[in-house]
Amino acid sequence: MNLHAVFNIAEICAQHGIKEVILSPGSRCAPLTLAFVRHPAIRVRTISDERAAAFIGLGIALTTRQPVGLVCTSGTAALNYGPAIAEAFYQQVPLLVFTADRPAEWIDQLDGQTIRQENVYGAHVKQSFSFPVDTQHPDTEWFAERIISEAILATQAFPAGPVQLNVPLREPFYPKPGETIVFKKNVKVIRETSNTYDLSITQAEQLGQELKKFSRILIVAGQQPLQTELQIALHHFAQQTGAVVVADIISNQHAVPNVISHHDVFLNGKATLDGPALQPDLLITFGLSNISKNLKLFLRAFSPREHWHVQVAGKVADPFQSVSRVIRVAPIYFFKNLAFQNQTPALKYAQVWLQKEAAAQAYLNQFLNQDAFNEFTVFARILKNIPAQSLLHLANSMAVRYANIIGLEPEQTVEVYANRGTSGIDGCTSTTVGSALSTDKLTVLITGDLAFFYDRNGLWHNYLPANLRIIVLNNHAGGIFRLIDGPKQQPELAEFFETYQPLEAKLTALEFNLAYFRCENLQQLSNFLPAFWSDGPGILEICTQSEQNAAFFESYRNQSPFKSK
Amino acid sequence: MNLHAVFNIAEICAQHGIKEVILSPGSRCAPLTLAFVRHPAIRVRTISDERAAAFIGLGIALTTRQPVGLVCTSGTAALNYGPAIAEAFYQQVPLLVFTADRPAEWIDQLDGQTIRQENVYGAHVKQSFSFPVDTQHPDTEWFAERIISEAILATQAFPAGPVQLNVPLREPFYPKPGETIVFKKNVKVIRETSNTYDLSITQAEQLGQELKKFSRILIVAGQQPLQTELQIALHHFAQQTGAVVVADIISNQHAVPNVISHHDVFLNGKATLDGPALQPDLLITFGLSNISKNLKLFLRAFSPREHWHVQVAGKVADPFQSVSRVIRVAPIYFFKNLAFQNQTPALKYAQVWLQKEAAAQAYLNQFLNQDAFNEFTVFARILKNIPAQSLLHLANSMAVRYANIIGLEPEQTVEVYANRGTSGIDGCTSTTVGSALSTDKLTVLITGDLAFFYDRNGLWHNYLPANLRIIVLNNHAGGIFRLIDGPKQQPELAEFFETYQPLEAKLTALEFNLAYFRCENLQQLSNFLPAFWSDGPGILEICTQSEQNAAFFESYRNQSPFKSK
Repeated sequence: MNLHAVFNIAEICAQHGIKEVILSPGSRCAPLTLAFVRHPAIRVRTISDERAAAFIGLGIALTTRQPVGLVCTSGTAALNYGPAIAEAFYQQVPLLVFTADRPAEWIDQLDGQTIRQENVYGAHVKQSFSFPVDTQHPDTEWFAERIISEAILATQAFPAGPVQLNVPLREPFYPKPGETIVFKKNVKVIRETSNTYDLSITQAEQLGQELKKFSRILIVAGQQPLQTELQIALHHFAQQTGAVVVADIISNQHAVPNVISHHDVFLNGKATLDGPALQPDLLITFGLSNISKNLKLFLRAFSPREHWHVQVAGKVADPFQSVSRVIRVAPIYFFKNLAFQNQTPALKYAQVWLQKEAAAQAYLNQFLNQDAFNEFTVFARILKNIPAQSLLHLANSMAVRYANIIGLEPEQTVEVYANRGTSGIDGCTSTTVGSALSTDKLTVLITGDLAFFYDRNGLWHNYLPANLRIIVLNNHAGGIFRLIDGPKQQPELAEFFETYQPLEAKLTALEFNLAYFRCENLQQLSNFLPAFWSDGPGILEICTQSEQNAAFFESYRNQSPFKSK
Repeated sequence: MNLHAVFNIAEICAQHGIKEVILSPGSRCAPLTLAFVRHPAIRVRTISDERAAAFIGLGIALTTRQPVGLVCTSGTAALNYGPAIAEAFYQQVPLLVFTADRPAEWIDQLDGQTIRQENVYGAHVKQSFSFPVDTQHPDTEWFAERIISEAILATQAFPAGPVQLNVPLREPFYPKPGETIVFKKNVKVIRETSNTYDLSITQAEQLGQELKKFSRILIVAGQQPLQTELQIALHHFAQQTGAVVVADIISNQHAVPNVISHHDVFLNGKATLDGPALQPDLLITFGLSNISKNLKLFLRAFSPREHWHVQVAGKVADPFQSVSRVIRVAPIYFFKNLAFQNQTPALKYAQVWLQKEAAAQAYLNQFLNQDAFNEFTVFARILKNIPAQSLLHLANSMAVRYANIIGLEPEQTVEVYANRGTSGIDGCTSTTVGSALSTDKLTVLITGDLAFFYDRNGLWHNYLPANLRIIVLNNHAGGIFRLIDGPKQQPELAEFFETYQPLEAKLTALEFNLAYFRCENLQQLSNFLPAFWSDGPGILEICTQSEQNAAFFESYRNQSPFKSK
């Protein structure tokens, strides 16, 4: 492609409303770099580690809910995008991935930074496009301009996700000294008016009739962004039908009145106390993944008679092994339109769940109120203390689990994020940084030491935002392995499962000009939190002992009133 | 697979002579972890960042010249192996990559750490195997055991490379308390006796006859490990035929008498002075990539009449655009058997090259002898000072280029490594660490600051070896962009090409218990080097100014007697 054709890419992206591009340095990608940097409507940042760069792009896309462009040079740069692209694929986040490449004739010719880039993301992108190398012919010009629109539209069509554009480029990569390239405004742009995915009146009536057959309706919300309108519709539907709403923390439904959010405390798979009384006859699910393993095991053991999954399009997952009907409508319209179809809510079923919820909350409050200093008690205090209107990122693997057990209060106006598309620890920090770059709100990450140091390069750039707060739960190991049954009984536990690591975050804070608070008791925690929230960007490190954390968590399980005898 | 079947994997690997496994922590991969850790013949290390882990495995395989096992858990862990796998593919290094997976029925069901792992490395592995989930049936048992041998043999068959084994696993992942699993010794093992790839007498005679038609034979050695026997054969062949041997530093031919190693100084593509006098009539190539762009451009401009490429099997690259015949024989046999076919060497051609080499060396000696402190002068002093018998790793991108211009002396018994399969900066430190773990020899990395901090997690584990020495050329940027013509003229140079980064290595040294020397003039360099070599593992950081480096390199080009007028 010549430089003018590459500049058209930026122009078409801009006309499609793409405002943010994350690029990584390179020579082969220079024409793309120049095109995006020089376009007045596009904000560009450069991040050297492509793995972190892609997760930062993901964080921006998650928070802005708009496609974000990524640009990398040829070679393994593109492969370093892999983890974030898989996360975007499974979390359904729109990313437009430009991978600069050599022309086909130079592949496998022992040239530097040259790999086989076509379809390099395999099954983890929605589509993969290859640009023509030469765009002199009017047909290839049409082709080159057309596929940019196609790619952008593909990132957004439900389910949203990443799309690759491989761009083979020949030298020269740079304008000649004094040469100015202008953005051609009359580029070809294809727009798409998407369906609203509403119910027809007939469908609504039919489903409403069917709904009346059920008196024990359980709604399980999977991971999704916070959407106040949906919460209102959901609450209204639950009121009208007597349905129970169960919501993990990542579903962002904690503000829904009467929501069940402590199910992980009182459910216990097959061994769940009062399992039959809790068993639904209709299960309604929407959204993406759930965290609570206890919930999954409970629903697999106490299957509903029917299971409706509400999802506008695409492949449907069946995590509870009970899906019996897929309803192709937007969840908000489903709940809005069906709320009026049922007049006599059966409240008895909801009361069983609400009693359990209250009991779980009481147990948890009493148990976590102890003066003990460990991850679990600290986590509970921090979660209650998160400032209103914050964005809260929860890293894999223990951070998001603790948070899901403890839950947020209904009045906490906090939006929750977590990389639960693939549940990797590889990009939690970077994703938070991207998120923080896209908002003025306080953006808080709670992470373990392994996830934090794994993705330390998420901080290695020149754009650390003032609203970033990182809380590192440092037990010098992958503490989860001491909490789960299998590995904790093996002699290999410490070396090969927990994997001791000696680092603390102090020097990292120093390197990246972050405030640093090291905390090893509850008093320090209370003392430090106000300054941590109000001062500039910083790291609060909670130093605990893996053995103590494990013992405390064990006693939480053992003392549980919901434990089967 | 049940635990016994997984333990058989380790046993078959051991019987095939696999001695080293790098694993990363995880739950899904626990059966593989236990099997390898408990096998008495296999040495296992655990590295948390899978990107670094895979490059460390690559480093071990490079140095031991044996296949190395990698084990990771399911999900994006496998994708983080991507860059090292591509490097192994193009540098032809045997890696046996075990990716733990969920059984097929749980893919895309919103479970944590679950992606589409079958063939996840696409075109960058030689083969990809999927283990059966259930191995009760005798046929699946035979299948499971057979494919382990097939995979191991595939890693080693020429061209060597990475092979994936995807291992779907169901719980339980751990033996019950008290349960011991023993290694079954009579597992199925398939061995392979590989061809020696020698020339037949007839072939040798025919090629010998053809060889006599040429009086200007140029041999270009691509990247390959040091092999003394090959050097002897090559030298003998050159003596007998009057051939010239041109060798980049990564070809490990610097000990060959009369080798041309300063070609990057005196060649200059089309504009090469005395180009016609240097032009070969027969070009013979073997090995992998070349670094010198000047050499590539020269050979493309002054094409040989014939170009023989010697390679036993596989796809052949044509980097000089002149290959006319592929000879399927091991280079060592080619040179051994054909050295005796030619009796009257035409020495005139070699003399033209040797004169250029001497002139280039003289220019370089005089030029680099200046008292100026910058990357280039420092590099020359360090390279001369590398202790005998060391392994020298050269990072991308400027480190390996400087080294290739300066070259090693014939008497320097140093083996050179560089990730020139894909020329990424993403794993240079980790590869060096793996290499250092496999030898008692001093193992030295020379790297830039971008490559160093990019791959900092190569140091984040509990196995840093005493023989590791890292020299960081820190100019706080990707200095190469200031040295090449295109970007240095763009207003975006500093922010989007060089990409300023503020870190120095001192705190990293502190974190990982490495000795640290910070050097900002030539006197300090002389003072520090002896201690740096003789003390324990350490980092020597050379702090220079990007602008000064660029100006000095520019004057090296401008003052060159080989510059076309």
